[in-house]
Amino acid sequence: MYPPVRKNPFIAVIGGSECTAQEAELAEAVGRELARKGAVLVCGGLGGIMEAACRGASAEGGLTVGILPGDNRYAANTYVQIPVVTGLGEARNAVVVKSGQAVIAVGGSYGTLSEIGHALRNGTPVVGLNTWSISRNGQADCAIIIASDPADAVNKALSAIKE
Amino acid sequence: MYPPVRKNPFIAVIGGSECTAQEAELAEAVGRELARKGAVLVCGGLGGIMEAACRGASAEGGLTVGILPGDNRYAANTYVQIPVVTGLGEARNAVVVKSGQAVIAVGGSYGTLSEIGHALRNGTPVVGLNTWSISRNGQADCAIIIASDPADAVNKALSAIKE
Amino acid sequence: MYPPVRKNPFIAVIGGSECTAQEAELAEAVGRELARKGAVLVCGGLGGIMEAACRGASAEGGLTVGILPGDNRYAANTYVQIPVVTGLGEARNAVVVKSGQAVIAVGGSYGTLSEIGHALRNGTPVVGLNTWSISRNGQADCAIIIASDPADAVNKALSAIKE
Amino acid sequence: MYPPVRKNPFIAVIGGSECTAQEAELAEAVGRELARKGAVLVCGGLGGIMEAACRGASAEGGLTVGILPGDNRYAANTYVQIPVVTGLGEARNAVVVKSGQAVIAVGGSYGTLSEIGHALRNGTPVVGLNTWSISRNGQADCAIIIASDPADAVNKALSAIKE
Repeated sequence: MYPPVRKNPFIAVIGGSECTAQEAELAEAVGRELARKGAVLVCGGLGGIMEAACRGASAEGGLTVGILPGDNRYAANTYVQIPVVTGLGEARNAVVVKSGQAVIAVGGSYGTLSEIGHALRNGTPVVGLNTWSISRNGQADCAIIIASDPADAVNKALSAIKE
Repeated sequence: MYPPVRKNPFIAVIGGSECTAQEAELAEAVGRELARKGAVLVCGGLGGIMEAACRGASAEGGLTVGILPGDNRYAANTYVQIPVVTGLGEARNAVVVKSGQAVIAVGGSYGTLSEIGHALRNGTPVVGLNTWSISRNGQADCAIIIASDPADAVNKALSAIKE
Repeated sequence: MYPPVRKNPFIAVIGGSECTAQEAELAEAVGRELARKGAVLVCGGLGGIMEAACRGASAEGGLTVGILPGDNRYAANTYVQIPVVTGLGEARNAVVVKSGQAVIAVGGSYGTLSEIGHALRNGTPVVGLNTWSISRNGQADCAIIIASDPADAVNKALSAIKE
Repeated sequence: MYPPVRKNPFIAVIGGSECTAQEAELAEAVGRELARKGAVLVCGGLGGIMEAACRGASAEGGLTVGILPGDNRYAANTYVQIPVVTGLGEARNAVVVKSGQAVIAVGGSYGTLSEIGHALRNGTPVVGLNTWSISRNGQADCAIIIASDPADAVNKALSAIKE
């Protein structure tokens, strides 16, 4: 009997497939905290930030969905429980952020920047941890909600959904 | 704590969002049987065949993934546990069949025909229940594995993966 | 100064990247005839049927659009004038048929079958030359308009738009 | 006889469907200049920046490709000569930037930000006119090539391809 999860919050964690050790630690802590709060973790399914977040969620018994760019389900990191195989290349980034009710961005790859843009475009809340800041014509855009640490990021993401 | 499902078989059930009562019964029985065998059910997330299959899987405590064409997670039928929100329109059909290790087609909408084409193109086994048959220049193409009933369809789909 | 083409008919020619010599001849004749009638040819941009159709259109000075599955614009056959680079894999099939106001299918690959399904699903007219025939529960589905030769295929496709 | 364009530069102009009058002027001048230099203009096909750029290109007899998010070819602005109908929603942003050999960003919508991210991720040169600036952990990222005016933007985009 699989426990129902449909009404749990679905949170997308976005970040590069390469990252620093410190960014991986942040992502893992985000994953752990999401699982403790009962959230389903959605991500791009590969390595780096995605793997670290899934590892954290798995350590707390959380559920992880990996929306893969390629054609091979075995490309998913070992902590992904639900591999979704898109074959869409980077266009899958749009699917990752649409499948989260809020997004937590960790670190700053260009793929992550594209996901931040997609999420803000859709009106999906974006919480940032050591990630991009953006400005327009010299004026800062404050749409990305800044978090001070992983627990803060998860709290802010969950509150942003509820609003 | 969620039971791990990564190594369970992932089977896509494809069929139209409108169907006859008899087709819905077949799809529901397919969903039930998949759940009993421990398979994760992947589908397009909407009504008709997709909803009937998810209802069957849910009745047996199975896990259901719905890969939606639109932008609204609440468009998923009520038996979908994991809504994946693509916004891709019918291009999501390619994602549905790539996310299954085998495909069971029930009934015959044109969307289902597109999914059968995508699956055969990828070399993914397709099992058919009351679905399309296809021929080329007057010669039958036998790539669709014909099943006699829902239990037979599930058995054939699971065996086709193992091969 | 490019001649305006927006109001010209846009016709998608679909078919496999491998084909027989006879199928290539049919596709080339379809391309020639489309160009003579002022139609813009849309296709998947690769070899086989797609290349033959583009070669025919080019020989008559027609305009050719190739909607590619991969990331490399140079993968387009040499007769494509407008390469559209999707990176979407086979999901680009849905884009090919949406970009035509009618579809001409030549030969019978499984990718072509997926495109026929997508087009019929959308209500886009499909004309067939030596291609799939489909039936449901033993009953022929006659949605594919059968053409006897390339000129007939082009005439039927153009008329189907006008209707 | 349609003039061959395959070897011409293909430049994507990205920007929001709503924009200020001043941004529209910039975009129109970019379109005009691209056409004068023989470039094919690729864009998202809708209003705002996209329409202004296509209007400019049309005034100089240039060729314009509009890669539309929806299902309706008639949603293209009136200056699009080649409408590509994707039905992919915002995932089409990835297709727009892949179809340009360089990208010129005008103004700053969030959709544009997603396109900048996709382009930089792919290694496609991005030239910016009154657009986003981005920084990571407080450090400016200088990957976006800043242009001082439309002619400068077009020159920089064309040079960036040649490199």
